[in-house]
Amino acid sequence: MNLTPRFARLLATISAAAMTATTSAAAPEPVTPSSILAAAPADDWMAINPHDLLVIDLAGGGRVVIQLADVFAPVHVANMRKLAAAHWYDGLAIERVQDNYVVQWGDPDGKKPLPGEIVKAPPAEYDRAAGGLAFTPLPYPDTFAKAVGLSGGLPVGEADGRAWLTHCYGMVGVGRDLNPDTGTGAELYAVIGTPPRALDRNIAVVGRVLVGMDILAALPRGTAEMGFYADPKQRLAIARVRLASDLPPTEQPHAQVLRDTSATFAAWIQAKANRQDTFFVRPAGALDICNALPPIKGAARVGM
Amino acid sequence: MNLTPRFARLLATISAAAMTATTSAAAPEPVTPSSILAAAPADDWMAINPHDLLVIDLAGGGRVVIQLADVFAPVHVANMRKLAAAHWYDGLAIERVQDNYVVQWGDPDGKKPLPGEIVKAPPAEYDRAAGGLAFTPLPYPDTFAKAVGLSGGLPVGEADGRAWLTHCYGMVGVGRDLNPDTGTGAELYAVIGTPPRALDRNIAVVGRVLVGMDILAALPRGTAEMGFYADPKQRLAIARVRLASDLPPTEQPHAQVLRDTSATFAAWIQAKANRQDTFFVRPAGALDICNALPPIKGAARVGM
Repeated sequence: MNLTPRFARLLATISAAAMTATTSAAAPEPVTPSSILAAAPADDWMAINPHDLLVIDLAGGGRVVIQLADVFAPVHVANMRKLAAAHWYDGLAIERVQDNYVVQWGDPDGKKPLPGEIVKAPPAEYDRAAGGLAFTPLPYPDTFAKAVGLSGGLPVGEADGRAWLTHCYGMVGVGRDLNPDTGTGAELYAVIGTPPRALDRNIAVVGRVLVGMDILAALPRGTAEMGFYADPKQRLAIARVRLASDLPPTEQPHAQVLRDTSATFAAWIQAKANRQDTFFVRPAGALDICNALPPIKGAARVGM
Repeated sequence: MNLTPRFARLLATISAAAMTATTSAAAPEPVTPSSILAAAPADDWMAINPHDLLVIDLAGGGRVVIQLADVFAPVHVANMRKLAAAHWYDGLAIERVQDNYVVQWGDPDGKKPLPGEIVKAPPAEYDRAAGGLAFTPLPYPDTFAKAVGLSGGLPVGEADGRAWLTHCYGMVGVGRDLNPDTGTGAELYAVIGTPPRALDRNIAVVGRVLVGMDILAALPRGTAEMGFYADPKQRLAIARVRLASDLPPTEQPHAQVLRDTSATFAAWIQAKANRQDTFFVRPAGALDICNALPPIKGAARVGM
């Protein structure tokens, strides 16, 4: 994974210049987010329990892997596990892609009956008690929350004794109709643009896409209202959805997430907020929660 | 443009429910960002001077329109106007798409000589004096700047007497090599993911994409280092780049931007920070600068 934010006009030029600088001046290499990750001990990377990974195989061969967040939305996530076990999601489709907002998938025509064991009206799992939650705080102010940080690898906001998952790029939520409906988990979306933080505490957030954002975010935008595809033929079919634990070992994903409790993560946050890379002339001195999501090893490369 | 953040499980269901509610309870319609825009007087929308619009026509028919920001990066923007007038950009290509970061275009092989009138080493127009700048502040805290707000329709950060354009979704910057190089404007990028605010004050930001983000952000991600396309055949060719003022009237774009100094804009900001739409159970009470970019009329629909 490359986290360097350089904007190469010509990659060959940059490489040559860097090599020359190293050779002639023998200046020490600056500590960068990339160099910190490259030096991370193996134990600082965690494999997610396969029971907590939802694997979506798309028509055409693309794969999306979602880390589930029972700690924040237990009833909704339990529904999703049951829907996967019942193979209920198989044959559904991605039906909506709204630029700078969300990609959404589920049952476009709303006609497929839900299995009997699904909780049809889950509680509003939009936030939870902050007490008892693991929390690695970020030492920077946030526009929306009293504090922000990481918990189990996921981005969290906190205020007044409540905690919630924040709507960052790649976070997954449960589609719902108007209040007091909370959705069931049959209809899901992932954020593909500017963090829509106004949705925080208004929707059940159920996890994070670890693998496959490069596929979801690159889908053609829908031209109907709210980014729905105008023509059903534009939808992308979902071939199969399973918990990783229900897949044969050879088909299980292997992405690893940097532990947010590790020394490597702390150093990475510090380096991202205070960039020493040669490119930067003025380090920001701060970092926002949506640029602090733990790096993933074994997925496609992502932004800085 | 639809700004409603509802997540429909079934559009027909929502519409039916809304009609029933209106008919039976006769409740007043809530004031929403959408209703405010729908009621905006024509004078609150501004057409951008065609001399300040860079129009990129892509191979295959897609069009990208960029509002130029002379006030922040005059030398770089002047270079861009000269490159467009010289037809220098024609035949170049989109060469890099890095998920959750940037799409970048220019001269992939770095071989095309620049016209003689180009300033080859512009000053570091990364920020400017805050004095004398029109500024509509947002009354909410920011992680990076002392204050944030809008100026001429563009998102601005301010601290210690300096002001700069912030890296939000759709903002355009000048690719450069390592410091002290500042780039010329020959190589450009647009943000397609989480705002990479660490780049603020480290790069010349030259404008905002008003039209065509739905095209740029949906391009296939590159698989080589930093999201460059591994195979030159994957690049998307740029057919023609012109100032709108140099196009025949029939080919000029017509997007309009909501004036950030208008009463409509103030009401829209207020409504976005304090959502009264039936969907919301807990308004955020705040708004971040990258969700406060002035709405555009005549472009593809965008997120909330």
